[in-house]
Amino acid sequence: MEPKIRDLRNEIDALNLEILEKLSQRAAIAESIGELQTAAGASHYDPVREAEMLEALTAANDGPFDDATVKSLFKQIFQASMHLENEADKKSYLTSRRADGEDTVVRVRDVPIGGENAPVLIAGPCAIESREQVTATADKLAGVGVSLLRGGAYKPRTDPYSFQGLGVEGLELGRAAADAHGMGFVAEIMDARDLPAFEAHVDMLQIGARNMQNFTLLKAVGQSRTPVLLKRGLSATIQEWVMAAEYLLHEGNTNVVLCERGIRTYEPSTRNTLDLSAVALAKQETHLPVVVDVTHSGGRRDLLTPLTKAALAVGADGIMLEVHPNPAVALSDQKQQIDFETLDAYLEATGYAKALSRERHEVYGF
Amino acid sequence: MEPKIRDLRNEIDALNLEILEKLSQRAAIAESIGELQTAAGASHYDPVREAEMLEALTAANDGPFDDATVKSLFKQIFQASMHLENEADKKSYLTSRRADGEDTVVRVRDVPIGGENAPVLIAGPCAIESREQVTATADKLAGVGVSLLRGGAYKPRTDPYSFQGLGVEGLELGRAAADAHGMGFVAEIMDARDLPAFEAHVDMLQIGARNMQNFTLLKAVGQSRTPVLLKRGLSATIQEWVMAAEYLLHEGNTNVVLCERGIRTYEPSTRNTLDLSAVALAKQETHLPVVVDVTHSGGRRDLLTPLTKAALAVGADGIMLEVHPNPAVALSDQKQQIDFETLDAYLEATGYAKALSRERHEVYGF
Amino acid sequence: MEPKIRDLRNEIDALNLEILEKLSQRAAIAESIGELQTAAGASHYDPVREAEMLEALTAANDGPFDDATVKSLFKQIFQASMHLENEADKKSYLTSRRADGEDTVVRVRDVPIGGENAPVLIAGPCAIESREQVTATADKLAGVGVSLLRGGAYKPRTDPYSFQGLGVEGLELGRAAADAHGMGFVAEIMDARDLPAFEAHVDMLQIGARNMQNFTLLKAVGQSRTPVLLKRGLSATIQEWVMAAEYLLHEGNTNVVLCERGIRTYEPSTRNTLDLSAVALAKQETHLPVVVDVTHSGGRRDLLTPLTKAALAVGADGIMLEVHPNPAVALSDQKQQIDFETLDAYLEATGYAKALSRERHEVYGF
Amino acid sequence: MEPKIRDLRNEIDALNLEILEKLSQRAAIAESIGELQTAAGASHYDPVREAEMLEALTAANDGPFDDATVKSLFKQIFQASMHLENEADKKSYLTSRRADGEDTVVRVRDVPIGGENAPVLIAGPCAIESREQVTATADKLAGVGVSLLRGGAYKPRTDPYSFQGLGVEGLELGRAAADAHGMGFVAEIMDARDLPAFEAHVDMLQIGARNMQNFTLLKAVGQSRTPVLLKRGLSATIQEWVMAAEYLLHEGNTNVVLCERGIRTYEPSTRNTLDLSAVALAKQETHLPVVVDVTHSGGRRDLLTPLTKAALAVGADGIMLEVHPNPAVALSDQKQQIDFETLDAYLEATGYAKALSRERHEVYGF
Repeated sequence: MEPKIRDLRNEIDALNLEILEKLSQRAAIAESIGELQTAAGASHYDPVREAEMLEALTAANDGPFDDATVKSLFKQIFQASMHLENEADKKSYLTSRRADGEDTVVRVRDVPIGGENAPVLIAGPCAIESREQVTATADKLAGVGVSLLRGGAYKPRTDPYSFQGLGVEGLELGRAAADAHGMGFVAEIMDARDLPAFEAHVDMLQIGARNMQNFTLLKAVGQSRTPVLLKRGLSATIQEWVMAAEYLLHEGNTNVVLCERGIRTYEPSTRNTLDLSAVALAKQETHLPVVVDVTHSGGRRDLLTPLTKAALAVGADGIMLEVHPNPAVALSDQKQQIDFETLDAYLEATGYAKALSRERHEVYGF
Repeated sequence: MEPKIRDLRNEIDALNLEILEKLSQRAAIAESIGELQTAAGASHYDPVREAEMLEALTAANDGPFDDATVKSLFKQIFQASMHLENEADKKSYLTSRRADGEDTVVRVRDVPIGGENAPVLIAGPCAIESREQVTATADKLAGVGVSLLRGGAYKPRTDPYSFQGLGVEGLELGRAAADAHGMGFVAEIMDARDLPAFEAHVDMLQIGARNMQNFTLLKAVGQSRTPVLLKRGLSATIQEWVMAAEYLLHEGNTNVVLCERGIRTYEPSTRNTLDLSAVALAKQETHLPVVVDVTHSGGRRDLLTPLTKAALAVGADGIMLEVHPNPAVALSDQKQQIDFETLDAYLEATGYAKALSRERHEVYGF
Repeated sequence: MEPKIRDLRNEIDALNLEILEKLSQRAAIAESIGELQTAAGASHYDPVREAEMLEALTAANDGPFDDATVKSLFKQIFQASMHLENEADKKSYLTSRRADGEDTVVRVRDVPIGGENAPVLIAGPCAIESREQVTATADKLAGVGVSLLRGGAYKPRTDPYSFQGLGVEGLELGRAAADAHGMGFVAEIMDARDLPAFEAHVDMLQIGARNMQNFTLLKAVGQSRTPVLLKRGLSATIQEWVMAAEYLLHEGNTNVVLCERGIRTYEPSTRNTLDLSAVALAKQETHLPVVVDVTHSGGRRDLLTPLTKAALAVGADGIMLEVHPNPAVALSDQKQQIDFETLDAYLEATGYAKALSRERHEVYGF
Repeated sequence: MEPKIRDLRNEIDALNLEILEKLSQRAAIAESIGELQTAAGASHYDPVREAEMLEALTAANDGPFDDATVKSLFKQIFQASMHLENEADKKSYLTSRRADGEDTVVRVRDVPIGGENAPVLIAGPCAIESREQVTATADKLAGVGVSLLRGGAYKPRTDPYSFQGLGVEGLELGRAAADAHGMGFVAEIMDARDLPAFEAHVDMLQIGARNMQNFTLLKAVGQSRTPVLLKRGLSATIQEWVMAAEYLLHEGNTNVVLCERGIRTYEPSTRNTLDLSAVALAKQETHLPVVVDVTHSGGRRDLLTPLTKAALAVGADGIMLEVHPNPAVALSDQKQQIDFETLDAYLEATGYAKALSRERHEVYGF
């Protein structure tokens, strides 16, 4: 390398350290301001102040950077400082994985989800259609060791003329079917005004994909202490999904289980595209349990077994699955619910037959 | 062509007509069944009956089609018959374009949207932040001929710690600012329980993209008679969007304006991808007015003018636009709201300066 | 049920069987025509003939179906018939899973991919940058039991001013590094004209995502007998991906391994969205081996281990992984290549440390 | 505001200016280094040097920023400096809109595309199927004032068993049909080896969506001087599309017209989603003409007119359209090509009937 370049690089090295020093001084002062603001109950973000600083800087700028570059560099510096201030407030998100790395375990009735517990299986019909249907399903599921029964009483349907669920009667039927076997009962809530009825009947409140950013519902359910299963929205980013969980925790409900159910893409072979990277990232960046709805993600019976294996291997804390005594006559999701015989084969093929009675590490070694 | 093939083709031709005759007979009988079912209040769809018919057919099938093909062909036939039955019920969707081809015109206060009316402009800040801010905006907008003021009082925010709107106070401030100039006031409703407060203050209820499939909210707003602006969901299909409008009409509220606001795609240069085909299709397949939110679709100030031109050319009945006295200090959407000076340039460049005072056909000739 | 309805349903049942009989007769005649056409070297699809038949049918149609429905139903019938004719030709796709259910095993040098063989690991730098770099990598990989070395000599780069690869020199360096350990060498080919040079140096030709529908390249590579690794396109459907493989098999190259590498979606946390349903479906619907590129799918080092576990659990026949002696100074993909130390941890965490020396079923039990 | 905060803010203001001064000094030195590197033919990007600087900085870092933040801030600074160096090289992209704001006008035979010229119409069959077909189409098109004939001789087909085009014979037929009316002829090239044949027969080389990142083809076509129509890839970002054009310009072919043709999204109602924001951005950020393929974007005849209006309103320099004497019997794209009668209606409805004989500004006023 040319000596000339070497000399110039030495000058750069010295300047780097001087810039670092100034940046650190600036950050320390910003921290002090942040503390005063927190004490006064004020926000750290003051766009007018930012605008003034940027104006002063571009007024003073003689190049060689153009003003846009100067603004951009200083915005990075402002943000880094504000990040420090926010951290100082310990206002880091309640959903964020904590320093101790501990996983939250959510208990639905007496069933633990998350942590080192064996992966859970939440199963049942898409919609509760009759006493016979839900009872037969619960009997079957209890028989094979499943302890959480799902079943919709209020159904979000694209078409207003489709079957909308049995309502409170559905909740009562589900509760009775679960109680016959001491199972936990999970059902989707769509309206904050129904919360008392749900709290009286269910052990876990499901928030569906279409309501993931129904902030009104999130705030109401956040005030409950009943565990929540929060599905990822049809095309929600991972960040948006975690922020929806943050609404629940912020309101005080810490019993939150995330549920990946596939995202909307261009691929026509599957109803949705299961995003297992999202499961890995949600596990990594939050302390919450994550389960995978294998029924809605693929929308195909022939994918239930491979997707279950993959979901458990990636680290999911459980699986959600639609089971119906006679899928061909179901009032919804005819094509993707499985019958009891198929369920038996599924439990065998996925290793769940064993998992439902043993510890996680015994079954899924690696 | 070989004579042998010609003979065989003649046989096929004869069989085609025989099949058609049988299909028509079958359809006529199915219609009669449909009428009896309708009289008895029963659904036309009976999956058990379908399953039995398919079983009988595959039992009788000796080839050359395999059973799967036989099932598939007959399912098409069943569906075609059921479609006839449904049509006979005149249960065609309330949103569907009617035979007369007439467009619905929705009146917000005294401002007509749709049909042959000049394209409307709905403008105002993302969120109402203070009396000064919304008053200044309304003054400006009224001055340039805009008659519909938008402004959020309840804001759907991804992050629970972001500014969530002023609530009822925001509604009051918006109402007052609009009243000062006889403008209509449009604000987003997020919770069915807030409907009375909204009905007391706004002239048009906005349902946001995140709530497009909040069926609880749709049903509540459908019971109102206040006009509704229904945004397309982040990744809703056109069909789902129209079905969401169907919920509103089904409940009795016929004053529905659809609003395209871009869909979520992989493209990073724009916040969303404006889907103008959806505007053309919504205009073609429904009788409802359609407006385009050019602020959220592109998420970029430099696209407001070209996207507005394109939206009006494709047939949109109006534009929604975010305007703020000082976007740099806005509490939300800093990057995409425009200031008053930019608004003037926009009105000139898009032809709106003229359009706001004249008939549609005078301004947009083709 | 009303007796009237029961009677009408009996009539329907009888008509169903009559329609089936006519359809079967029609299909048998169509098969005869198909045989004559095949003998004459003619295509089965004759759009003019189809148009004439549809015209005759709609001319004869007196309802109750409207003409569009009649056309649609008969198009289904035509297609079912043509499908029969095509099957009779045994022109079913060469990629389709055969009746015997047997998996194709592709041998790269002496390394078998697919079937019951232990999952393979194909690893190496994104681009071959120097003799030192590729030699160090091959030494390391051979040391831990990896037998297939990857490394790009021609790089598809979005920007024409980015590093484009060393060309033939890169092929020579890769070959030498692989030979030192008896490894197989895999490199991406971008131009049909380079085929002789590749055949002289590599053991497996990679077709990259951007070239998945470069039909010219597919045809050329199909004429080779060197094994091919065919990546799924950035936003290719599973069907398109399999059809791209069909081009290769159709030209005579049966040594094809499919490679899923994530698809383009709206999600910003990952470079692409790994679609493991596609792996399950490709395994189910074709007889070809399928491997997963975990480097490009997530684009994040922290996802390599969980995505590998999931890919193997879903049934992938191997993994592709980018490894570089010093990723920070790599000329491409700095953020996603891993160094040697991280490789060791990865092999341990994924179970590959064991898998590289044992049979598949020994390692991945379920 | 508390006096304490005011004092601290003054300190921050002073530090801001000091940091700016240091940054400017650093940038000036970096520029000098850049000049020396350019003189020596060396790249400005030296990852090893960057890694060393970052190491020195984190070694010196005593907080309050953590090391990751320090690295991130300095990477921004490095990049801003390198950007300056690259600009100094005047290596700004050849496709970028120049300071003078002038539009490039590409001439295909004697037809100008771009700038202030009336929007062009490029029309013709998807594939050239026979002399009769292409001659009839050219006769019709010439009769209504269209001067550019399109028609495929080599067709990119997903399925290897689909019609692949007539090859050189197709080029000859298209050339003859165009010559009969003095029209320009546009056809898609798929293989660099076919370039001589294309240069002998066509006036404009089309690069199809599936080949947009076939860099081999881009480089070959870039060496030609025949005008190029470069379609956007199925799911290419705007940036990737422009970079593909940069390959062409970099090789010396400046006669490049960009063609938007819709992107792949989840929406099933349209074959692709037309992205008119991309047209606006391509016009804004490059100096190249941009046309819109309305046939492939919607994939529906009923959208051709509204999408054409929108495309022209957003600023497109022309439209590409598939026309066929009898679409029902076409060998490809049966559902989206239009017949001659529909063409007449289209020309009238879109204003093209007038536009084909007049200046742009006369027809499209705003």
